[in-house]
Amino acid sequence: MSDIKYTIGLDFGSLSCRGVLVDVKDGSIAAEASMAYPHAVMSEALPDGTPLQGDFCLQSPADFRESMIAVVRELAAKCDPADIIGIAIDTTASTVLPIDKNFIPLCEKDSFVSRPHAWMKMWKHHGAAPQAEKILRICREQKSPYPEWYGGTVSPECLLSKVVEVFERDREIYDEATAFVEVMDYLSSLLTGTPTFSLPLMKAKAFYDNGYPDKEFLSAIHQDLAELPNKLTDGFAEKVIAFPGERAGSLCSEMAEILGLQAGIAVSVGTADSYSPISALGITREGIMIMIIGTSMGMMLMSREGHSVSGVTASLPDIYRKDLWGYASGLTSVGDSFGWFAENCVPAHYEKEASERGMGIQQLLTEKASLLEPGAGGVMALDWLKGNKSCLANPYLSGLFIGITISTRPEQMYRALIEATAFGARRVIEEYRASGVPVDEIRACGGIVGKNPLLMQIYADVIGLPIKASWCAQAPALGSAINAASAAGIENAIDSMSDSNFKIYYPNKDNIARYDALYAEYLTLHDYFGRGGNRIMERLRGKK
Amino acid sequence: MSDIKYTIGLDFGSLSCRGVLVDVKDGSIAAEASMAYPHAVMSEALPDGTPLQGDFCLQSPADFRESMIAVVRELAAKCDPADIIGIAIDTTASTVLPIDKNFIPLCEKDSFVSRPHAWMKMWKHHGAAPQAEKILRICREQKSPYPEWYGGTVSPECLLSKVVEVFERDREIYDEATAFVEVMDYLSSLLTGTPTFSLPLMKAKAFYDNGYPDKEFLSAIHQDLAELPNKLTDGFAEKVIAFPGERAGSLCSEMAEILGLQAGIAVSVGTADSYSPISALGITREGIMIMIIGTSMGMMLMSREGHSVSGVTASLPDIYRKDLWGYASGLTSVGDSFGWFAENCVPAHYEKEASERGMGIQQLLTEKASLLEPGAGGVMALDWLKGNKSCLANPYLSGLFIGITISTRPEQMYRALIEATAFGARRVIEEYRASGVPVDEIRACGGIVGKNPLLMQIYADVIGLPIKASWCAQAPALGSAINAASAAGIENAIDSMSDSNFKIYYPNKDNIARYDALYAEYLTLHDYFGRGGNRIMERLRGKK
Repeated sequence: MSDIKYTIGLDFGSLSCRGVLVDVKDGSIAAEASMAYPHAVMSEALPDGTPLQGDFCLQSPADFRESMIAVVRELAAKCDPADIIGIAIDTTASTVLPIDKNFIPLCEKDSFVSRPHAWMKMWKHHGAAPQAEKILRICREQKSPYPEWYGGTVSPECLLSKVVEVFERDREIYDEATAFVEVMDYLSSLLTGTPTFSLPLMKAKAFYDNGYPDKEFLSAIHQDLAELPNKLTDGFAEKVIAFPGERAGSLCSEMAEILGLQAGIAVSVGTADSYSPISALGITREGIMIMIIGTSMGMMLMSREGHSVSGVTASLPDIYRKDLWGYASGLTSVGDSFGWFAENCVPAHYEKEASERGMGIQQLLTEKASLLEPGAGGVMALDWLKGNKSCLANPYLSGLFIGITISTRPEQMYRALIEATAFGARRVIEEYRASGVPVDEIRACGGIVGKNPLLMQIYADVIGLPIKASWCAQAPALGSAINAASAAGIENAIDSMSDSNFKIYYPNKDNIARYDALYAEYLTLHDYFGRGGNRIMERLRGKK
Repeated sequence: MSDIKYTIGLDFGSLSCRGVLVDVKDGSIAAEASMAYPHAVMSEALPDGTPLQGDFCLQSPADFRESMIAVVRELAAKCDPADIIGIAIDTTASTVLPIDKNFIPLCEKDSFVSRPHAWMKMWKHHGAAPQAEKILRICREQKSPYPEWYGGTVSPECLLSKVVEVFERDREIYDEATAFVEVMDYLSSLLTGTPTFSLPLMKAKAFYDNGYPDKEFLSAIHQDLAELPNKLTDGFAEKVIAFPGERAGSLCSEMAEILGLQAGIAVSVGTADSYSPISALGITREGIMIMIIGTSMGMMLMSREGHSVSGVTASLPDIYRKDLWGYASGLTSVGDSFGWFAENCVPAHYEKEASERGMGIQQLLTEKASLLEPGAGGVMALDWLKGNKSCLANPYLSGLFIGITISTRPEQMYRALIEATAFGARRVIEEYRASGVPVDEIRACGGIVGKNPLLMQIYADVIGLPIKASWCAQAPALGSAINAASAAGIENAIDSMSDSNFKIYYPNKDNIARYDALYAEYLTLHDYFGRGGNRIMERLRGKK
């Protein structure tokens, strides 16, 4: 065995698994590998051709296993496997599947292969919206604390909503299931051979706080749901419930052989792909916000004392770090909005210019938008192209452009969209601060960070704080590799392994005042359309 | 001489002169001809290269003369010129030029060829905005009736504003000019050899009502402007002031030779290109609105009794027909908005599809938009891409899109723009009705009418009245040919010659209720952004 020690971090995103082999000495990434899920997201039909009627976003647990095996084997081949001392997993959440007592997914049993509710429900599956509304109503009737944990609402994406959806829509699957588990726990359990659960996710997605909701609460959902906790973690006699970075167990020999690793190495408790970058960027204290800027934007933060913050999707102790309160908020559509614009709203002659100059269309738009002053030449936008899940918590809100004239050029609308997300981010930060949660530093990572310096500068100018940008393209996987190192007994792994090679964007003083004025306009529109001044957006989306 | 008699109608639009040779028996068009103005619109530089600094839209009177000659000669060659019994002209308005006592444009004198204010100012030249504001202020101070004639404001486009602009910006040109004339009067005067003025335009654009504003009023603009009327029609001892369709005089032999016509035929008093379609569509009574749907949309109407209508650009007796009050209103941007959208907001793959199918891009958008339900799949717009000159009379307003999601397709935004112009038109109609002016029938003409049946159907559905669509592509020129026939002594020319070959779009009952609900949304946005609820649009356009 050499002096070098590695851990493997595996990040299961929406469409692929990405893995990194990381040197525990300094966090440097020695190798990367990835694999797309063969079935990606199933919204139209199941693999056997069964059509999906209604609002489904399903995935295949076999895809996750296969990509885990392929990615780990590829990484293990890049070094002496004996040098790999730990492994950890992060996944999207809540991505939930029903399993039997042997941890076999129900969708892999012949009798259930054509049953949509036997399959894994991806985080963005929204079929459980009626169930979430019902649970919220019961919370209010019973004055339960849960909505306060979850930003005043109950998400259709959370594990509990999804389990109730199965119960109501396909009772046989519900009855047949031994348990419903987050996919990170499913995979970690496979690795150790023991049921393993990530405590922060139980809090964040399954209403757990030293126990699940009581029978009175669950019976109010349905009389036959009183024993629901037995279908979560309570049904397992032998199990591990712990924090990411804690040792879930040792890699079992069966999986070690399949993966090409040594049996007995540390397996960390898993985490969510939105949590693990917090470790990757070395955030361990109150007041440092992480912005994970991709298709959407996560904005997470910790504080020593708990505060009630409205418009967060999570507000709970111990979800990111022990002994600190953790909060989650963010914007639903960032890169998605820019992608929508580039795909739908940019004329052929722009595409031609981009192609001739060997640029992407967004690169060209960014170049042209960079030449504009703050305010995008008089165009403003609201950034709610996928609704608002932060301060307004309303999925029926929509995007808006104002200030359009027949002289308006595409780059103005593109820049207005970027600025709108910056204003949206500032709005979230102000909500945190107004609630007593300090925000004194911002660290950013995610796909857009390295690609769009204009956006980063606008964010710094609008928010008025320097933004430390990590260009690490694999922050979630790196965070998992750090968890794996902690689980393997490396002390202070987060300090030695996290990325601190930041590019810092400082606010431009001239722009701050101009953006302050525009932000005031944004707030007026935000409140008019978002707080009941005019509920046109909801009516246009067909909400009665 | 044969039994057949023709007249010529000449329509001088913004970029070209179009002429028709019309059979006075039934109004059928025997021949058409057109010529684009060589210098089109000058906004950057004068023909000699003198750069234009600031906000100029200038034209060349020589261009108008040359295109008149070319067009008439081409038409005269299509028949026996002896059969042509009259000619009439319509032009944009106020398109104004300074002339000397021999009707020579000052811009054609060597000493003034480089002076911007010696040139002809096109209707849409907005350099006189400060002057218009000043005149409006004086109107208010002196409690003058003029703003009431002009929808509560004074337009920077009107003749008076433009003359004061010359006075303030280039006093030497003002002093040197014998008169400032509308280009229709300039051209008609050339034809007859006698100064000829169109009375409705004097009312509509030059504050004339049995006399110009008095010395007290004019001195308030500037002490040296007391004698301003002498620079309009008052300075001419010999002159004709009459109505379109009345005989201005006979074609002088010099022009007859140049044009290839017989000397002595009737020359009608000229009119505005927005007025002449009223004759072309046979509108002679109260309650029939004309919609002229092109880049913008004119909405004109007459009533037996005078009413005070807010948000009209004209409200005066006798401007379209003797003994009837005439009103003008409309939308600033209709075809212009659709053109903007097609040019700036449609992706390459749409252009590719249109090209492969041999369609125009707007034709393709219209086809796709036709498949959508009323409401454009949840997208709404405000149609103020060039401000609002009707009910809100505010050039600083701008366009808006709301209801945008990452599923929004270009045809939704395109349809939303069409629907927004329909709502805008309905708003204008409701203003008329609320003011006591009946609207019981709609006749439409203009470039878009024959091209876009979807738009016509949406207008019928939104407005709730059948729309009689004239596909006559030369309605203004036809109206002038009718005026020429009247001037030549043909009785009831408007009845026998106007276009009555309408395609009628009837409202679809199912759509009416749906559009009523959407129109209510439009009104709420209209008033919020247009009536002071939120003046963001003005601030975004830089208005302090």
